[in-house]
Amino acid sequence: MKTITIKEISGTITSPAGFQAAGIHCGVKRKRNDLGIIYSEIPASAAAVYTKNIIQAAPITVTKESLEQSGNIQAVIVNSGNANACTGKKGLEDARDIRDAVAKHFQVLSNHVAVASTGIIGLPMPMEKIMPAISMLKPSGKKNAAAQFAESVLTTDTFKKKICYQTEIEGKIVTMGGVAKGSGMIEPNMGTMLGFLTTDANITPSELQRALKQAVDGTFNCITVDGDTSTNDMVLALANGLAENDSLSPEHPDWEAFTGLIHHVCEDLAKMIARDGEGATKLISVEVAGAKDDCEARKVAKTVVGSSLVKTAVFGVDANWGRIIAAIGYSGANVNPQTIDAAIGPIKMLEDSQPLPFSEKDAKAYLQKDDIHIAIDLKNGPGQGKAWGCDLTYDYVRINASYRT
Amino acid sequence: MKTITIKEISGTITSPAGFQAAGIHCGVKRKRNDLGIIYSEIPASAAAVYTKNIIQAAPITVTKESLEQSGNIQAVIVNSGNANACTGKKGLEDARDIRDAVAKHFQVLSNHVAVASTGIIGLPMPMEKIMPAISMLKPSGKKNAAAQFAESVLTTDTFKKKICYQTEIEGKIVTMGGVAKGSGMIEPNMGTMLGFLTTDANITPSELQRALKQAVDGTFNCITVDGDTSTNDMVLALANGLAENDSLSPEHPDWEAFTGLIHHVCEDLAKMIARDGEGATKLISVEVAGAKDDCEARKVAKTVVGSSLVKTAVFGVDANWGRIIAAIGYSGANVNPQTIDAAIGPIKMLEDSQPLPFSEKDAKAYLQKDDIHIAIDLKNGPGQGKAWGCDLTYDYVRINASYRT
Repeated sequence: MKTITIKEISGTITSPAGFQAAGIHCGVKRKRNDLGIIYSEIPASAAAVYTKNIIQAAPITVTKESLEQSGNIQAVIVNSGNANACTGKKGLEDARDIRDAVAKHFQVLSNHVAVASTGIIGLPMPMEKIMPAISMLKPSGKKNAAAQFAESVLTTDTFKKKICYQTEIEGKIVTMGGVAKGSGMIEPNMGTMLGFLTTDANITPSELQRALKQAVDGTFNCITVDGDTSTNDMVLALANGLAENDSLSPEHPDWEAFTGLIHHVCEDLAKMIARDGEGATKLISVEVAGAKDDCEARKVAKTVVGSSLVKTAVFGVDANWGRIIAAIGYSGANVNPQTIDAAIGPIKMLEDSQPLPFSEKDAKAYLQKDDIHIAIDLKNGPGQGKAWGCDLTYDYVRINASYRT
Repeated sequence: MKTITIKEISGTITSPAGFQAAGIHCGVKRKRNDLGIIYSEIPASAAAVYTKNIIQAAPITVTKESLEQSGNIQAVIVNSGNANACTGKKGLEDARDIRDAVAKHFQVLSNHVAVASTGIIGLPMPMEKIMPAISMLKPSGKKNAAAQFAESVLTTDTFKKKICYQTEIEGKIVTMGGVAKGSGMIEPNMGTMLGFLTTDANITPSELQRALKQAVDGTFNCITVDGDTSTNDMVLALANGLAENDSLSPEHPDWEAFTGLIHHVCEDLAKMIARDGEGATKLISVEVAGAKDDCEARKVAKTVVGSSLVKTAVFGVDANWGRIIAAIGYSGANVNPQTIDAAIGPIKMLEDSQPLPFSEKDAKAYLQKDDIHIAIDLKNGPGQGKAWGCDLTYDYVRINASYRT
């Protein structure tokens, strides 16, 4: 039996060979960086998953065009502060103008450029601020440059989200870095956020798409903050092949090392987004076993972690397991109402759907922590699944009652 | 063409002929009434719709038994403060013991008694408080008695929810009264709340069920507070026939008067529940036209009114129409992304999915009101639908962070 080693390293999107980044402030937002670029020294195989919202922003359309036309991406331009959504023909023209300006400045093909935006819906893009700033983007492979990029994609996020993992493929070190942003309009089904993955693995766009889709389904699509699916979200993966392994596919002996790598990067970023949900003070992880199948297990996990009543109870340090079982019951999953076990952290509260006596003091002590784990066993099949979310707090209301004005 | 007149009168569940009520404090809750009864002088045709949550509380099981066995109900016993949910065999025994004690005290058949509970999940029923109090229930037809009952069903509600309408059937006055409670775990699909309707109309249980189901689908099932579907909820309608009309059915010339009556009572109670959503300061009504069909229109309306981001924007007096169009987009309805019109109150903000210029000052002035109306025209078909909800506020978090402890 082969051992696969996947280890976290101190690094980010510029750690894989041949990737550079930059982030600057161009004035769309008040203070923080709001314009960023990822640049690969050579065109990289690209794959993406997009929001499932029917209303899709202009940059989504433009990035889809690039990927469909070429399958390769060399530069990714991202702005925060303005979503360029519901901006009509002018918005689409603006997104294409930005793409073309980036292509010109970095001397790459237009259909080798991806465009992403996040921010307020329905305002015209401040092109007078963005266009002159493109030529001021000076990407480099330095860690600091990646940090500048990670800042440039944030909106209401309170911290930068970046990660890096390595594995071995054919005995060669392969690295994958990732950057993401949350933190409102966060809901399963890839109406989630922006995520950017870079790797020096050698893989075709279609195999990269397969691996990305699989990883996203079990990670980014299993987080929820507020149940609102955004118009702008995407996860984009770039693989430039500079690790010089044989092209990866399910037939490659190290395919599991690669899928493990992308899963780790996606799961860590997804959990960072959940932890940094608007106003959140805690990360909530829900792990479900014993469902009919994995899909049903994820459905239950997502429903529990998305319940406003569970979220407020966790915020209030209240071991209100009744809300957990109520959420299981309305999840729509095929559940046996008589066989449910549930635990909050180490404290078992429910066995065969019946309450167990427990120490309120111990429960309070556990719920004071920053990481809250809820384990559910439906004892109704082999299915397993996880989902992540955060508590619902006064600050969520404060942030969203005055986001636009 | 026949004119149907349905008029609101000052009255409640004791206004229809032959109905009495009472409400007392037996000690499950700290101060407010927590035990109530509705009593009909003769057995009444009964119909009910129940929560769709797979986890159902013991009183739901017991009330289903009564309705299946007899189709008639003469007494409804309701307690608040304890939901008798997830309480296992003991909980079911408790619910049956309460039913039997009511039957004995009021000298009615056990299967002519309905039982309803609302409150905390998973605690044993305080039978030592409830059982001795049953004989202290002295129902009467007085308005004050109905008000005592309306108080006895409340949990986190801030006001009593009662209504009364009259119409004419065969030239005779027919009256219908209603009482309901909210206000958390409120979500479409009859995971909603408790509602009790009384009428002196003459109608069989099966026709009453048909009329109730139709009314509930367009009213109680179109409100949402927090997306959580409860384990306990039901709407129960009693019709004792004392108005002495010919038995009602779709073939009766005044069937529309009766369905109009039940719809008015349900819609008014549903809107009261939405307005009194936990922590709410405003009632939000969403009206959708131009959907593929009525079902799709309701789906869009419910999604918009259930969006945490729309709810917080309304609380924050922020005309953030971007969140409305985003919710339309992820509703799952068949929507043309190019043809959406939207207005907040009198202010049109979106035409053919494009922003219109509007006065922020006028929008702020409108959003200061207590009743906020959002109109959406999808221009994609003949379907129409409405949904009601409330804003999401600091008080929702405060109430739910410490409900149990």
